Amino acid sequence: MRQRPRFRTYPPIVCHRQRRVRFQEVDQLAYMWHGHYPSWLEDGREALGKKYGISYLDFYHNGVVTPLKSLEMEYCHPLRYDTIYTIETSLLWNDAAVIEYSYRILDDKNTCMTTAHSLQLMLDVHGTLLLDAPAFYKAFMKRWAEGLVQ
Amino acid sequence: MRQRPRFRTYPPIVCHRQRRVRFQEVDQLAYMWHGHYPSWLEDGREALGKKYGISYLDFYHNGVVTPLKSLEMEYCHPLRYDTIYTIETSLLWNDAAVIEYSYRILDDKNTCMTTAHSLQLMLDVHGTLLLDAPAFYKAFMKRWAEGLVQ
Amino acid sequence: MRQRPRFRTYPPIVCHRQRRVRFQEVDQLAYMWHGHYPSWLEDGREALGKKYGISYLDFYHNGVVTPLKSLEMEYCHPLRYDTIYTIETSLLWNDAAVIEYSYRILDDKNTCMTTAHSLQLMLDVHGTLLLDAPAFYKAFMKRWAEGLVQ
Amino acid sequence: MRQRPRFRTYPPIVCHRQRRVRFQEVDQLAYMWHGHYPSWLEDGREALGKKYGISYLDFYHNGVVTPLKSLEMEYCHPLRYDTIYTIETSLLWNDAAVIEYSYRILDDKNTCMTTAHSLQLMLDVHGTLLLDAPAFYKAFMKRWAEGLVQ
Repeated sequence: MRQRPRFRTYPPIVCHRQRRVRFQEVDQLAYMWHGHYPSWLEDGREALGKKYGISYLDFYHNGVVTPLKSLEMEYCHPLRYDTIYTIETSLLWNDAAVIEYSYRILDDKNTCMTTAHSLQLMLDVHGTLLLDAPAFYKAFMKRWAEGLVQ
Repeated sequence: MRQRPRFRTYPPIVCHRQRRVRFQEVDQLAYMWHGHYPSWLEDGREALGKKYGISYLDFYHNGVVTPLKSLEMEYCHPLRYDTIYTIETSLLWNDAAVIEYSYRILDDKNTCMTTAHSLQLMLDVHGTLLLDAPAFYKAFMKRWAEGLVQ
Repeated sequence: MRQRPRFRTYPPIVCHRQRRVRFQEVDQLAYMWHGHYPSWLEDGREALGKKYGISYLDFYHNGVVTPLKSLEMEYCHPLRYDTIYTIETSLLWNDAAVIEYSYRILDDKNTCMTTAHSLQLMLDVHGTLLLDAPAFYKAFMKRWAEGLVQ
Repeated sequence: MRQRPRFRTYPPIVCHRQRRVRFQEVDQLAYMWHGHYPSWLEDGREALGKKYGISYLDFYHNGVVTPLKSLEMEYCHPLRYDTIYTIETSLLWNDAAVIEYSYRILDDKNTCMTTAHSLQLMLDVHGTLLLDAPAFYKAFMKRWAEGLVQ
């Protein structure tokens, strides 16, 4: 993963969500197929978004869509069928009008199996890139900077 | 994508494959959902692998599996439902016992919509990391270095 | 599959499409997972629809959507990884404002591996059930009844 | 769905599991794509199987695999993005060496949105059809018949 040094930053907001590897997700070797991870990372984002009022629908109702700009995954260990794992989703502070997450997938022994990173842009309903986050998200960031987001 | 300077390298081996965005793949905004790309990148790898005798099954029959170590995608423009697009898969020369690909997804006007990069390891049947590629792959690389792979 | 006796009927319109079982589609036993079939049946419908001007988009541009009402699949033999198979899609004559298909999945030796049947309704943009097919589809059915659809 | 009259039968064993419609699962009209249901029906089966010791892995460890023979789905109402729904899975008594389930998908107001039915065969490790269920499953059915399965 790329290094991302930063000025004036605040601690990430972290959310955990548990899942179990499904029969339909494993390949011939009984391991989760690598292409299923984006699906569960999205679940991690949604879980965090819902908890803090910054989900897909919150943006949508404010006239903003947030398409992925980039997604990077680093596979360290494979997940076996039926393993219970945790998606640890961390919203990273970013001053630009983007949404930046990092992720860790942990198995049932808390071993880090996969790490990931995503960046989302903000577009208005006409598909125009926003250079400024919508008001509701700025308010959320203000609370975050003040340490009021739990 | 990361910069990857290299000594002694040979031109990539490139393969093209055409697809059409399917109804089931687009989201509410009628764009291909970002998480479907790994599926089509795998098709690109398989197409190239079959053409040059280095596919999943070729490795498998030589007692080697090749799990993804990393996958990075950079989304530039979204693909709309029913658009015909091309997966351009490039096998990059790499001296280590890894398989390295870069990809471009081009729309029907040849605009680059998405770029991607993947790295695969080589493991034997016991899951042990190979530090040396299997003989059939080394023979392939020799032909590649000699300019004999078309 | 249910028996469907009929009065005044015309021969089905049939379309073939070839696919290969993908790595990501097979389970631990190296067989296509049963839940992937609806995806390829949709490809069969789309192929037939495009050929005869009655695709999803043709309906959509006439203000009609055609959700699935029912889908039945009968699995006779499993498909192995890398097998080339044919989706045989048959549009069945139906006097009601519905779209009825039957399907056969044939392997590379022309053995029937799976049969299926689907029924689609026609709804207008407000979600109201149409009791009468749109004009363009009626015109298509007229040509069909006259033996003019090839 | 087909009628299934029966002699000597026992009440079904029922299991409920809650899910939420995910962004990646809805189509352009914001409805769950019909082809995603087999995935969640499998989750229903797995939930019931784990609860009663008759899951995929329980069969597998007894040398038996249980491929789908048929799957039928009847779509009554579509599920919207973000709706919380319940998969109600009912294991139906069947004297033959098969596993038979019926399903109801209920929305958050308890309206039945989809019904389904599946039939699974039992095969040994060589792929031979079993005419007799394995001992552990027979023992389970005995407890079921005696009203001891809760």
